[in-house]
Amino acid sequence: MRIGVLGTGMVGEAIATRLIELQHEVMLGSRTADNPKALEWAAHHAPNASVGTFAQAAAFGTFVFHCANGGHAEKVIASASEPLAGKVVIDTSNPIERSADGVVQLFTDQSASLAERLQAAAPKARFVKALNTITASVMVHPEQIAGDHLTFLAGDDPGAKTDTRALLEQFGWSPAQIVDLGDLTAARSAEAYLLLWLKLWGHVGHPLFNLSITPAAGAEAHASPV
Amino acid sequence: MRIGVLGTGMVGEAIATRLIELQHEVMLGSRTADNPKALEWAAHHAPNASVGTFAQAAAFGTFVFHCANGGHAEKVIASASEPLAGKVVIDTSNPIERSADGVVQLFTDQSASLAERLQAAAPKARFVKALNTITASVMVHPEQIAGDHLTFLAGDDPGAKTDTRALLEQFGWSPAQIVDLGDLTAARSAEAYLLLWLKLWGHVGHPLFNLSITPAAGAEAHASPV
Repeated sequence: MRIGVLGTGMVGEAIATRLIELQHEVMLGSRTADNPKALEWAAHHAPNASVGTFAQAAAFGTFVFHCANGGHAEKVIASASEPLAGKVVIDTSNPIERSADGVVQLFTDQSASLAERLQAAAPKARFVKALNTITASVMVHPEQIAGDHLTFLAGDDPGAKTDTRALLEQFGWSPAQIVDLGDLTAARSAEAYLLLWLKLWGHVGHPLFNLSITPAAGAEAHASPV
Repeated sequence: MRIGVLGTGMVGEAIATRLIELQHEVMLGSRTADNPKALEWAAHHAPNASVGTFAQAAAFGTFVFHCANGGHAEKVIASASEPLAGKVVIDTSNPIERSADGVVQLFTDQSASLAERLQAAAPKARFVKALNTITASVMVHPEQIAGDHLTFLAGDDPGAKTDTRALLEQFGWSPAQIVDLGDLTAARSAEAYLLLWLKLWGHVGHPLFNLSITPAAGAEAHASPV
């Protein structure tokens, strides 16, 4: 498969490299087509690796990962809006900033996730929020962590979610580990969890961990209000 | 110990009843001193159970649980601000509302948790955020769920957190299950997780579950940015 990866940070590099391992053709996109880090990565992973602008990488892929820093995400997606039309875009970004008083917080307001803002910036793309709740290395090698730890999907397009699941399974996630949270508004909950994830990182002492959930045995069904 | 419990909803009743089981004296506080539900509860749990207004329950307790609905929380705490002075107040509430478009969201903005707003409403109280990330029944009987599932503390007063830990251990939480997230600003992350918790409830099919975290084996230390 031809896949575009937007963003050359830790997440973009980890995903692009894993996709190469899985025999996909990958174009790594950045602001300029001559980003030195991207060129070095492509040289190291020839012949299936290439580099381009965000718009070129979006045009290249039949499938696109958005891995740019949350603070730049809307500009990145707007710059690739046309070539993203009709394509599945997996958004891994988080709307994290440091407040004036030094506390890490979300820069979104409570009524929209960053994923929804990106969908608005490229209305014809088929956005799926995924993988934003774990560190890059665990995203692409979930077998590092024992047990049925979880990753989440949110999106409005059922076919796009099915395609995303298939790619996550290539990364090593089992079907039972992939939880569909609902439509794209559910990305609000996956992004909000990042605040707790950062605190849990402090507790664990490194980011190579993930959450799992254990239900009480024998509990009766009781529908959620959401 | 004499303990005040503010709020007669599911959480207030579960905590008050558990405290009675543990041989504490409990006053259940509500808006009026003749709340029928509170009176029925006290009659059932005589002689260590009593009822009063929020301010009376706050005055009664050497230790206070805040269990009122998030939407009423600031009024409740403001009405008991004076008797709460100097006391440990465990805040279990969540700033949850349904938006105009039907999505459940937080009514706080990103720069302050409800716990911080309650601390501002009763500046001399010693607030600790705790237990807000789990359903009432699991708060007070964590043994229903297998494994080292977690509960969180956030607060500015180390002594208040130590006292809160001791009470949580009476409920059945082991020291390893109680994670100190940091100062009261860390309550933002525990409250934000509620959005994911509600979605996970939908996935599990009932609210009798909790999260645990599994680290990768052999990972090196890497300090969190928060």
